[in-house]
Amino acid sequence: MKKQIINACIVTMNSQMEVVKNGFIDIEGDEILRIGSMNERQTNSPEIEITDAAGMIVMPGFINTHTHVPMTLLRGFADDLPLHEWLTEHIFPAEARLVTPENVRIASRLAFIEMIKSGTTCFNDMYFFEDIIAEEAKKAGIRGVVGESLIDFPTASFKTVEEGLSLCEQLIQKWQNDSLIHPSVCAHSPYTCSEKTLKSGKRLADKYNTLLQIHVSETRKEVEDIKIRTGKTPGEYLHSIGLLDKNVIAAHGVWLTPKETELFASTRTSIGHCPKSNLKLASGIADTDSYRKAGVTVGIGTDGTASNNTLDMVEEMRFAALLPKVVHYNPEAIQARTALQMATLNGAKALGLDGITGSIETGKKADLILVHANASNMIPVYDEYSAIVYAMNSKNIRYSMVNGEWIMKNREVLHIDKEETLKAVKRIACSFRLS
Amino acid sequence: MKKQIINACIVTMNSQMEVVKNGFIDIEGDEILRIGSMNERQTNSPEIEITDAAGMIVMPGFINTHTHVPMTLLRGFADDLPLHEWLTEHIFPAEARLVTPENVRIASRLAFIEMIKSGTTCFNDMYFFEDIIAEEAKKAGIRGVVGESLIDFPTASFKTVEEGLSLCEQLIQKWQNDSLIHPSVCAHSPYTCSEKTLKSGKRLADKYNTLLQIHVSETRKEVEDIKIRTGKTPGEYLHSIGLLDKNVIAAHGVWLTPKETELFASTRTSIGHCPKSNLKLASGIADTDSYRKAGVTVGIGTDGTASNNTLDMVEEMRFAALLPKVVHYNPEAIQARTALQMATLNGAKALGLDGITGSIETGKKADLILVHANASNMIPVYDEYSAIVYAMNSKNIRYSMVNGEWIMKNREVLHIDKEETLKAVKRIACSFRLS
Repeated sequence: MKKQIINACIVTMNSQMEVVKNGFIDIEGDEILRIGSMNERQTNSPEIEITDAAGMIVMPGFINTHTHVPMTLLRGFADDLPLHEWLTEHIFPAEARLVTPENVRIASRLAFIEMIKSGTTCFNDMYFFEDIIAEEAKKAGIRGVVGESLIDFPTASFKTVEEGLSLCEQLIQKWQNDSLIHPSVCAHSPYTCSEKTLKSGKRLADKYNTLLQIHVSETRKEVEDIKIRTGKTPGEYLHSIGLLDKNVIAAHGVWLTPKETELFASTRTSIGHCPKSNLKLASGIADTDSYRKAGVTVGIGTDGTASNNTLDMVEEMRFAALLPKVVHYNPEAIQARTALQMATLNGAKALGLDGITGSIETGKKADLILVHANASNMIPVYDEYSAIVYAMNSKNIRYSMVNGEWIMKNREVLHIDKEETLKAVKRIACSFRLS
Repeated sequence: MKKQIINACIVTMNSQMEVVKNGFIDIEGDEILRIGSMNERQTNSPEIEITDAAGMIVMPGFINTHTHVPMTLLRGFADDLPLHEWLTEHIFPAEARLVTPENVRIASRLAFIEMIKSGTTCFNDMYFFEDIIAEEAKKAGIRGVVGESLIDFPTASFKTVEEGLSLCEQLIQKWQNDSLIHPSVCAHSPYTCSEKTLKSGKRLADKYNTLLQIHVSETRKEVEDIKIRTGKTPGEYLHSIGLLDKNVIAAHGVWLTPKETELFASTRTSIGHCPKSNLKLASGIADTDSYRKAGVTVGIGTDGTASNNTLDMVEEMRFAALLPKVVHYNPEAIQARTALQMATLNGAKALGLDGITGSIETGKKADLILVHANASNMIPVYDEYSAIVYAMNSKNIRYSMVNGEWIMKNREVLHIDKEETLKAVKRIACSFRLS
């Protein structure tokens, strides 16, 4: 089935940053076939599904480069605490009781409803029972990078690192040829994984040429701990054991030194920047403007809902655009178009998926959203980038498409039963609170 | 006509921070008559209008303590620039062409639609042609504090400070007994007003016992300039000329010294904290946690849409809760309930209106909003303050009431013609861009 979107203001995010003010997009199967001005549009054919985007901005969907999907169950469970206390005294014990295959399934459904309603078309996840998360993403129609999180203590999904590695490999083998799910390997962090675990994870990622995800340099405590243990900063340490290259995305990277920034740039290691989580846990403000200027690819991520507490990339992009301006008191740091690039194409680059998503271009998969820009909170639109980055709210997003298939129409998420999911989540949270 | 809201989770924001999990609110005329648990509720009477708030949180509406309503016309007109360049090279020249009575009227309507849809029930405005803004607020049914902005150069509404003072006085006399509009006096700032202007403004405010609004200590440049001119920091200077007291709200206050913080506390001068604008213009991050601990009343404001670019208090509250955590790397700074207090009751205090609004209490005016909390981005709700401050989006706000009258039902703003307003704004912006 061919699809055509007409009368659209298309913010392509291609390398020339083209904006087609009144254009159309032809979609065939899962791919973008052609983009043009309305006056070049060919006559209707009856077998084309037409979507009229008058008054709307059509743009690539958001790429959430770092999250923990099933943590929706722990949204607001413990707030206003420092990271290490929050993690070890609240989140880890709660997860020990809450993380079951069935709960992960329900929690993922809730996460995908929220993600789709706020314009995310692709997420990068690090958690447990990732095969279930992959199954639910596939059903919802959202693109996902998934990776079972290796860590040096027993988890809900595996008891030993060897079991974890085996789970990772099964996940890769099962999904490696899927059109929507992209398996990866995760090593939780340099402070929760031994050198051996880190290297085993990287070897597995290399064997299948997949992404490796890892938390790096999130807090000053982490930096100090790693320095004491290894004599090096986290980035230098990971580099010294062969863990940095173009297939690696480091979540957070709040405290990178200039030397680490250079290392990241020269090895083409990417950053998954999570500004709200970094504020909420008082971790700090990453100097993403300097990272970018040094040549590091920086994407944006929400982190899990326990430390955010939303999965809303519109909000996250706003923080990513505004915060760097006070790092060196420079209002020109991370301008609107740069922020949007981070939230779309550079996110795709960071995940190694810029060949297929992150921009609206002929030959790429049709992963896009339609934004109702004729809204009281968005007009006047003097500049589309400004309107998207500084004024838009997730409520303005009306339609979403991934791989050429609609996954939201008129704000209705199409492939998840919302009422059932909300009921199930409340039931789980209620029994968890009472237990 | 009596009104009753039933089956509500009521976050009262009263001094005991009471939350009534399943309660009702009786409203008679413009006042809250009674709040109670559903099991104490009296039988229905046919002349009561009943609103079922099952699944909803009922909370006080937001108090926006600093804004420039008609700047909606300049949303996204000039971004990513330093304050003084932005103001003198872009905003002031644009305003010279754009600020006419008719444009102010249309721009105010757009602002009120956005404000009401994002839960604001009371705003504090500083601009020109405030009488028109007051008229439009009155029609929309939103509570407003208005003040014509005194400044030492000719403006669109007056040529000399004397004319400005006379306009201010007319505004006060016209509106001083209104139930919805609260006139005030504004002096733009210590860097745009002479000592004489500042003192004249304060004398006028004192004569009528109204609020005085002023921008204070927004940028480091301002602090340096005032120091060079007066030998004092802005707060010390204003204190030395008798400008600080409990009827004064200082917008921004980003760079208060500990000495100024003490002065604000001892004189009971309030702060209108505008976190997003302070980031966007790279002004800095105000240390509101220290201000509060020293006893200063801190409310939250959006500033104008040219430097934000929204009027969304939900977003602003989120920034106000998250940013202070990295000032001293303390995640306990401005906890959820504190942030909500700043956005509601303390905002009312800062404007001298806590006797009538800012909390849901018997005897206060019924200024409240209904939040659909059974939403994919809000559940599970382990704690109402956390859900409101860290998870809620303005789209979750369904109903709004001011002075006992509904101003939004089911997300429809009742007393402003939205289609006409959107058309008119686009017409103005289009001709402005082309001119």
